Amino acid sequence: MTTISRVYNFSSGPAVLPMPVLEEIQRDLLALPSVGMSILEISHRSAAFESILSQAEADVRAVAGVPSNYKVLFLQGGASTQFSMVPMNLLGPGMTADYIDAGSWGEKAIKEAKKVGAVNIAASTKSENYSRVPTQSELKLTPNAAYVHMTSNNTIEGTEYKALPDVGDVPLVSDTSSDMFSRPIDIARHALIYSGAQKNLGPSGVTLVLVREDMLSRSQKSLPTMMNYAVQAENGSMYNTPPTFAVYTLGLVMKWLIAQGGLTAMAAVNERKAAKLYAEIDRTGFYRGTAHKDCRSLMNVTFRLASEELEKAFVKESTSAGLDGLKGHRSVGGMRASIYNAFPESGVDDLVSFMREFERKRG
Amino acid sequence: MTTISRVYNFSSGPAVLPMPVLEEIQRDLLALPSVGMSILEISHRSAAFESILSQAEADVRAVAGVPSNYKVLFLQGGASTQFSMVPMNLLGPGMTADYIDAGSWGEKAIKEAKKVGAVNIAASTKSENYSRVPTQSELKLTPNAAYVHMTSNNTIEGTEYKALPDVGDVPLVSDTSSDMFSRPIDIARHALIYSGAQKNLGPSGVTLVLVREDMLSRSQKSLPTMMNYAVQAENGSMYNTPPTFAVYTLGLVMKWLIAQGGLTAMAAVNERKAAKLYAEIDRTGFYRGTAHKDCRSLMNVTFRLASEELEKAFVKESTSAGLDGLKGHRSVGGMRASIYNAFPESGVDDLVSFMREFERKRG
Repeated sequence: MTTISRVYNFSSGPAVLPMPVLEEIQRDLLALPSVGMSILEISHRSAAFESILSQAEADVRAVAGVPSNYKVLFLQGGASTQFSMVPMNLLGPGMTADYIDAGSWGEKAIKEAKKVGAVNIAASTKSENYSRVPTQSELKLTPNAAYVHMTSNNTIEGTEYKALPDVGDVPLVSDTSSDMFSRPIDIARHALIYSGAQKNLGPSGVTLVLVREDMLSRSQKSLPTMMNYAVQAENGSMYNTPPTFAVYTLGLVMKWLIAQGGLTAMAAVNERKAAKLYAEIDRTGFYRGTAHKDCRSLMNVTFRLASEELEKAFVKESTSAGLDGLKGHRSVGGMRASIYNAFPESGVDDLVSFMREFERKRG
Repeated sequence: MTTISRVYNFSSGPAVLPMPVLEEIQRDLLALPSVGMSILEISHRSAAFESILSQAEADVRAVAGVPSNYKVLFLQGGASTQFSMVPMNLLGPGMTADYIDAGSWGEKAIKEAKKVGAVNIAASTKSENYSRVPTQSELKLTPNAAYVHMTSNNTIEGTEYKALPDVGDVPLVSDTSSDMFSRPIDIARHALIYSGAQKNLGPSGVTLVLVREDMLSRSQKSLPTMMNYAVQAENGSMYNTPPTFAVYTLGLVMKWLIAQGGLTAMAAVNERKAAKLYAEIDRTGFYRGTAHKDCRSLMNVTFRLASEELEKAFVKESTSAGLDGLKGHRSVGGMRASIYNAFPESGVDDLVSFMREFERKRG
């Protein structure tokens, strides 16, 4: 047995997974217990996979307290496919959808929605480089809108909503790709929630969608079948072959989450990890956080240095020190530490030490 | 180390994978060599993944001799998503697409195309339970059609084309999900080829698309971005996060294919495996092949017994004997042995022995 050398992975996604999950996948890779075939080989119509799928759904429901009038779907194509599916299914002729423009991913969602129907930008912080999310009083909502679309956490800009916006009786749709299951979430205040799995839920290749049943009546039969929420729901995510391995892995992550104590316990750890980093950022002024303090993300901690040259040195030296993936998104520059559920606190401590030492040498 | 017990997996897909591929995945599951992170965790923008993606593409090109004016795309959503993407991209207003109706999956493709534009059924064998593919002389092709759509191998009915239909200068689009890379394929006679990976290419969750570059000019900007071939091609399958693990596994399967001697060597093995089964089916009349002899599939061998009761016993007893997944598709009944590239010849021999013994006891 060779020793496995692992680095700290600050990548924004795909991202670090819990070691017990990786170890279980590895152990059973050639044959699932009492199945005699690999998870990569079993038919999606087999009893073994049906059990994996239904257990994953049950664990998602347990983790988030998903009400019984919501469907749990495991789809493909990532949040980018949801950017189109949401308006194709929910934005009927003559209706308007409200979009909150608070980050680069939300902006992409808006672009796709405009191809489908009428869109109202309820608020935008684009002119402020998306350094914060809009406040409640800034929202200009359309009465009887088809839905309001928001992004709960902005992966690129490092901001998050601390409380859900109040949209009255209008259905709230949220892209929760980068903070799903990192803290408690009030499912019942949403009509539809979608998350690419590759940050907190599993590997890339599966998208978790929670949808309130009354929304399904909006899906028209004229839609491409694979883009139709109602068909996917009727078929229990098995209209065609689902991404079996990604669903299996997501299920293992749910079991790990439950073993950690669920969302409340997870939020406490995430708050502690993020607080350590933000405290270091704020300590002297050598580092500068880019997000407004009242909407700093617990998942993606973004910060800058005095010059791009210094930032380049920071990224290079931290990578050499086994702290991987700290370069910010190419559209905004700077640094970004993504510290999702599975990111170990010891890695945060190491980064804080590295930051302090870097400041000592270069400050 | 516990002993791994594996059964013979005759599933139609997801299906058996080569053992050396499974073993390599298992070995490196916690950390890819010199990367320090699992393939499940690495960023799709990392040098490590970019190398995996470009190597997978290079190996696909090498295996099939893909001409340089074809793009190789790794998409999500399976063939069912392609059923919509093909007409959404290629079937412009005022044009007609020809579809050859030769099996249950092709029928689904037709249903999706009709939502998009004008469809002509160039030929159909539906009234014969899809027991054969149409002959060249039966095809009623539209002059200047947008394209002709065919299914090269019918997974459910167990038929395949022995030679490509002649469609003149009209672009030929083929769903090759269940026979891709099981035999040589003349890419240049096609305009677009798509295959869900989960039969011969890898796990479920990735779809291989080969598209001739001139087709990309048909993709309109008004399409949902994720459904736009031109955008996917411009971005090298990285418009959004690709299904990284499925692409990695597909790449390992390509390396295995090359090590086996490529498509010509693979076809020889596949012909030998199928010949053994068809010889047993034809030996006495106890078993009855359902496909016309001149278009019997090398991948999916379908056969029946004199009664459903006997078939039920066959499936039950073969499963107990470690021959898994022989029950035919629920829509047609009977038995189906799917013997893709990675299915070991020893499993075919065991099935032949089982069939002979079953006939001796029940015949």
